[in-house]
Amino acid sequence: MSLSMHQASVSVFVRTLSNLSAILKKGEAFAEAKKIDPSVLIASRLAPDMHPLSRQIQIATDGAKGCVARLAGVEIPSYPDTETTFAELQARIAKTIDFLKSVTPAQLEGSETREIVLKLPTRELKFAGADFLLSFATANVYFHVTTAYDILRHNGVELGKMDFLGGE
Amino acid sequence: MSLSMHQASVSVFVRTLSNLSAILKKGEAFAEAKKIDPSVLIASRLAPDMHPLSRQIQIATDGAKGCVARLAGVEIPSYPDTETTFAELQARIAKTIDFLKSVTPAQLEGSETREIVLKLPTRELKFAGADFLLSFATANVYFHVTTAYDILRHNGVELGKMDFLGGE
Repeated sequence: MSLSMHQASVSVFVRTLSNLSAILKKGEAFAEAKKIDPSVLIASRLAPDMHPLSRQIQIATDGAKGCVARLAGVEIPSYPDTETTFAELQARIAKTIDFLKSVTPAQLEGSETREIVLKLPTRELKFAGADFLLSFATANVYFHVTTAYDILRHNGVELGKMDFLGGE
Repeated sequence: MSLSMHQASVSVFVRTLSNLSAILKKGEAFAEAKKIDPSVLIASRLAPDMHPLSRQIQIATDGAKGCVARLAGVEIPSYPDTETTFAELQARIAKTIDFLKSVTPAQLEGSETREIVLKLPTRELKFAGADFLLSFATANVYFHVTTAYDILRHNGVELGKMDFLGGE
């Protein structure tokens, strides 16, 4: 056994959400440079029945904080879904990262076997902590961060893969 | 320490690529039902300077097999990037999954500390195996699988999040 639950959850989500923050900053700068009302990008979608950019950020942050809180057995911080500006979306990402960083490796010790129950509208999903993290929560967070990137990219924002992957 | 490198790599990628295969099948069925030439979807992009659907599949599979082969210290299977039909893309996914499944937990034992060197066009990236897997390779695979989903969804294919996350 070679990876800790903390490394595979908190570290991954902090990195991914930090990259999302940098991607959003490029979106905001693009709107400014092109004199586009920022709300146009924030409400943009890839299909009429897909979520807009703002909701992608809300779900990505919900996915990360929900996963780590469930694994640690602490209350999930609840944020009202009211963000309508880049500044508000950045604040939501920042407070999610602050919460993630507050959870210690010790709090996640043993969480690979913790039973996690997700109540969906039509059914319940039960997982062991490791499966919940690796097969559900990580996929979900990456899905919404990638889709946020794709929405901005589709609208002409100059982004490259390294913005998504991060690093120096 | 609570997660194995095999669980966090082979299991995750097999699941993700299996879901990608199911997503592509829905794309193919959509083209058939709407009498759209399948090559239109396969060449579709979210932006003129983004990769088309076919290339998203090629890079997603490359990312998965490259990661696991590097971690195991075995030769990376090389596939020519010649797929132009849904059947050929499905075959590429299937042979990638076969390769992933051929790598045993024992072959990945200790790979969390193996030094991984990636030669990019302009520079070299060096990682410990755990960081390579968690901060780079997994993000990269999810990026391209999500973008494949987003391309099909943008074109009207009826997909939902559960197609992406998989499970019964």
